[in-house]
Amino acid sequence: MEGKEEDVRLGTNKFSERQPIGTAAQGSDDKDYKEPPPAPLFEPGELKSWSFYRAGIAEFMATFLFLYITILTIMGVNNSVSKCTTVGIQGIAWSFGGMIFALVYCTAGISGGHINPAVTFGLFLARKLSLTRALFYMVMQCLGAICGAGVVKGFQKTLYMGTGGGANVVQPGYTKGDGLGAEIVGTFVLVYTVFSATDAKRNARDSHVPILAPLPIGFAVFLVHLATIPITGTGINPARSLGAAIIYNRRHAWSDQWIFWVGPLIGAALAAIYHQVVIRAIPFKSRS
Amino acid sequence: MEGKEEDVRLGTNKFSERQPIGTAAQGSDDKDYKEPPPAPLFEPGELKSWSFYRAGIAEFMATFLFLYITILTIMGVNNSVSKCTTVGIQGIAWSFGGMIFALVYCTAGISGGHINPAVTFGLFLARKLSLTRALFYMVMQCLGAICGAGVVKGFQKTLYMGTGGGANVVQPGYTKGDGLGAEIVGTFVLVYTVFSATDAKRNARDSHVPILAPLPIGFAVFLVHLATIPITGTGINPARSLGAAIIYNRRHAWSDQWIFWVGPLIGAALAAIYHQVVIRAIPFKSRS
Amino acid sequence: MEGKEEDVRLGTNKFSERQPIGTAAQGSDDKDYKEPPPAPLFEPGELKSWSFYRAGIAEFMATFLFLYITILTIMGVNNSVSKCTTVGIQGIAWSFGGMIFALVYCTAGISGGHINPAVTFGLFLARKLSLTRALFYMVMQCLGAICGAGVVKGFQKTLYMGTGGGANVVQPGYTKGDGLGAEIVGTFVLVYTVFSATDAKRNARDSHVPILAPLPIGFAVFLVHLATIPITGTGINPARSLGAAIIYNRRHAWSDQWIFWVGPLIGAALAAIYHQVVIRAIPFKSRS
Amino acid sequence: MEGKEEDVRLGTNKFSERQPIGTAAQGSDDKDYKEPPPAPLFEPGELKSWSFYRAGIAEFMATFLFLYITILTIMGVNNSVSKCTTVGIQGIAWSFGGMIFALVYCTAGISGGHINPAVTFGLFLARKLSLTRALFYMVMQCLGAICGAGVVKGFQKTLYMGTGGGANVVQPGYTKGDGLGAEIVGTFVLVYTVFSATDAKRNARDSHVPILAPLPIGFAVFLVHLATIPITGTGINPARSLGAAIIYNRRHAWSDQWIFWVGPLIGAALAAIYHQVVIRAIPFKSRS
Repeated sequence: MEGKEEDVRLGTNKFSERQPIGTAAQGSDDKDYKEPPPAPLFEPGELKSWSFYRAGIAEFMATFLFLYITILTIMGVNNSVSKCTTVGIQGIAWSFGGMIFALVYCTAGISGGHINPAVTFGLFLARKLSLTRALFYMVMQCLGAICGAGVVKGFQKTLYMGTGGGANVVQPGYTKGDGLGAEIVGTFVLVYTVFSATDAKRNARDSHVPILAPLPIGFAVFLVHLATIPITGTGINPARSLGAAIIYNRRHAWSDQWIFWVGPLIGAALAAIYHQVVIRAIPFKSRS
Repeated sequence: MEGKEEDVRLGTNKFSERQPIGTAAQGSDDKDYKEPPPAPLFEPGELKSWSFYRAGIAEFMATFLFLYITILTIMGVNNSVSKCTTVGIQGIAWSFGGMIFALVYCTAGISGGHINPAVTFGLFLARKLSLTRALFYMVMQCLGAICGAGVVKGFQKTLYMGTGGGANVVQPGYTKGDGLGAEIVGTFVLVYTVFSATDAKRNARDSHVPILAPLPIGFAVFLVHLATIPITGTGINPARSLGAAIIYNRRHAWSDQWIFWVGPLIGAALAAIYHQVVIRAIPFKSRS
Repeated sequence: MEGKEEDVRLGTNKFSERQPIGTAAQGSDDKDYKEPPPAPLFEPGELKSWSFYRAGIAEFMATFLFLYITILTIMGVNNSVSKCTTVGIQGIAWSFGGMIFALVYCTAGISGGHINPAVTFGLFLARKLSLTRALFYMVMQCLGAICGAGVVKGFQKTLYMGTGGGANVVQPGYTKGDGLGAEIVGTFVLVYTVFSATDAKRNARDSHVPILAPLPIGFAVFLVHLATIPITGTGINPARSLGAAIIYNRRHAWSDQWIFWVGPLIGAALAAIYHQVVIRAIPFKSRS
Repeated sequence: MEGKEEDVRLGTNKFSERQPIGTAAQGSDDKDYKEPPPAPLFEPGELKSWSFYRAGIAEFMATFLFLYITILTIMGVNNSVSKCTTVGIQGIAWSFGGMIFALVYCTAGISGGHINPAVTFGLFLARKLSLTRALFYMVMQCLGAICGAGVVKGFQKTLYMGTGGGANVVQPGYTKGDGLGAEIVGTFVLVYTVFSATDAKRNARDSHVPILAPLPIGFAVFLVHLATIPITGTGINPARSLGAAIIYNRRHAWSDQWIFWVGPLIGAALAAIYHQVVIRAIPFKSRS
């Protein structure tokens, strides 16, 4: 195990775990980090803890601010035909990615900084939090998103409705299948980054990873927006899509809404499976 | 308390403080970090210390450079009708956010790196600095801002006056109430990030947070500009708004000036209350 | 050796290694870091290790996601004539650089995070990984790139083919020699950054460098794209160029394909030589 | 001195050095960091050290790559009238700032990562390096810059000459005095950031600062470009201005050349004085 530090390096020329195929990636002799036990489905003690409710409030507040800033940015950009006198479509992508960076940084220590039901779902599948907590987070995220979009509409109702309200719809020229695919892969990119950046094993090797993690996570959101704004406006966050749909409340936004729940949840599940099966090799563990 | 390190991780599946509701978030048995005592309102010893005056000079210099770079960027962008031959509105947002990142990084160790009376006010409410120091900082910030805008006007008076002088005004199509609301929420985002990034509790868990803090703080400023430049030009910094108004000195800039003081101070106060009441649960502490 | 820490600082006023010209830059008395031994050309044990295959899968997945996001971004931008209603050419550059940042961050601990046959080739020349592993990585990278571009084409075949398919070609007004030169220097910038950021010597002086390394590496990719998109569309990654060419499959893309293999491999080799000969002074070592 | 760690925090409510005005900011009882002794003007031993020449080669190579990427980016942007089909003026600013970030990161451990005669001059005034080394660096930087611009011209001579060659000139509508002022303040911002980011005192408080320093330094360059590209094209680096002027070699570029030497050197000197006199309080030291 003396090669541990070198393993983090790019261009590593060793395979420090040199384990035969079919054995656990993390054997019981790996003493330098501790895999936390899977979270129970229901943890009654949680409901009596202030930190549980504080985490929910933090998720509400973060999702509120996320929708407020991003939908306001969209409204400003869409209000101009040429986009050149605005921050542009790239500015919208920065708005989404940058807010996730700042908010994950601010709330990671309070609630884990999910701000997204798809992220909560992926981490729940990996048993990183209880079912009770996952459901509570999702409800708070959706409420926060509704309030955030509502405040933007409150500023300027005519402008908000006239510029599409930041609602996610599959754009002309793309099929619903394209939209679903874009949401699945886009959310995979995000949740894959979340898993990679917050891996317990990495934490052990370098304790600063959780502090740095918000930056690649924010960038992942930014990058997916660069790619898929022309297809769906980019959801990859069911709370964001639901909040905008409820406040915008037009039929064509509602008819695509399922895509922005089914896609992200599938993408998050695939990322959880990829990380647990391939990267952490959990199936092999059970055999050993 | 053995779960402390894991608490920073995203997707935390524990509630490490497992405290009954209504008790202090930070009990006296929490030995791994020390809540600094509240700053006294008046600290006579400060006035005899060189570091007190050095901090004021650093705030002056930082706010001077902040206004110089940002107002010069605004002047260059507004001088072009199409904006395509300039760095664009997005470039203005980068200018504000990037300067705050660089200047907070440079002055954090000297003065705390406020560069903004609203930040100073929020931190004063949380008793992080004395009233004497808070007032001294605010005066130095406003003087620096006036000088910074003045130098830009000195370069090109005609161009400066013709392009609006970087002064904050509520844009056509928005009411004064919209402007006030945008300033309140925008400043909340900024001061909430400042509190989250510089929390003593986080510092204890990972000592590099204060070093990394300038990045999310700068991003918060960038993001608020992306969203609210179309509404007010974005103040969220009374010194910046006052400096530009004094040097521009046109009636319509002065008639909106109150918005850029009342809004940021309310936003900062709400952020201080949110952080102390919800995140740090101070009220619960006094009961225990 | 007491000056070691200061050596990292900018403006170092010492030459802490004060070695006569012609001696080894890293003598055997340098105890604070350990130069890993050169990787063997063939390491039979590797082939029985799960981490070897996992690394290959991680390279496949990362290159897949890299092509998916970047080619989709290109397709969205090229679909608009004015580019103003898109994320723009600058958005394409961010897409490439940002993905490399996020993916290197995510896969550095699994495979070293190459995501690029030129990087693998450069690190192989410096004997950082075995020939077996280098070839396996390159194959997986090319397969991933083909699949990534294929999925984008699957979304919208007409649009994909109509917008150039993200394939690298030398642009009108530039000769093939210009294109080759741009690829050589561009890849030099990237691989030089990879070597500098992951140097074993730096690691010893500050253990956080490998964690921070993805950021300058991603920026290097972003910057080369800013400069050479007008010349070749910017390859500097043979897997990316091959994947797009295979899926686009038009004659003019194929006729330039050799440039995007020869150029990057030469650039990577030059960077490896520069780092080993000048920066690490390996030739001097063998003499001592 | 028990308050040291808290001093780095924003919103510090203590003045941990609580020293009477007129005494040294860094007394001899400050044991937690060591002020390196001023560099001698001439250090004969340096000239026999391989690391001295290696540092010069690294400065040459970094300035070469800096000019190559940035001038190529400028050529691509200026080749388009509308700029919308290019990375835009903002892309040019990213190119300069991003290259400085990546190159300082890569060369900080080898040469200190100056890549700019004004930075070398400022650090020399603060006695951070010997006169011999400063002159050697400046010569290598200028040679690297000439070669970098030369390679760009080699790609496309007609295009290079037609798009202004990346040479710095005072733009129409601004006086030579405006240009000189913009260069002075712009270089002050850069060198002030360099001093703040690499302060020995900060290093002692947190050893990761030198590793993080390239980011604010790169941002400073980016921000100054956002502001002053419309005035002078932004020099703040005499090697960059000289290299482009020599390769472009038109009269109007030469007639403004003095501005891009006098301005940056004055700005660097002011930053050195500000840091030494105000921030480090050196004059007070000599009195105590």
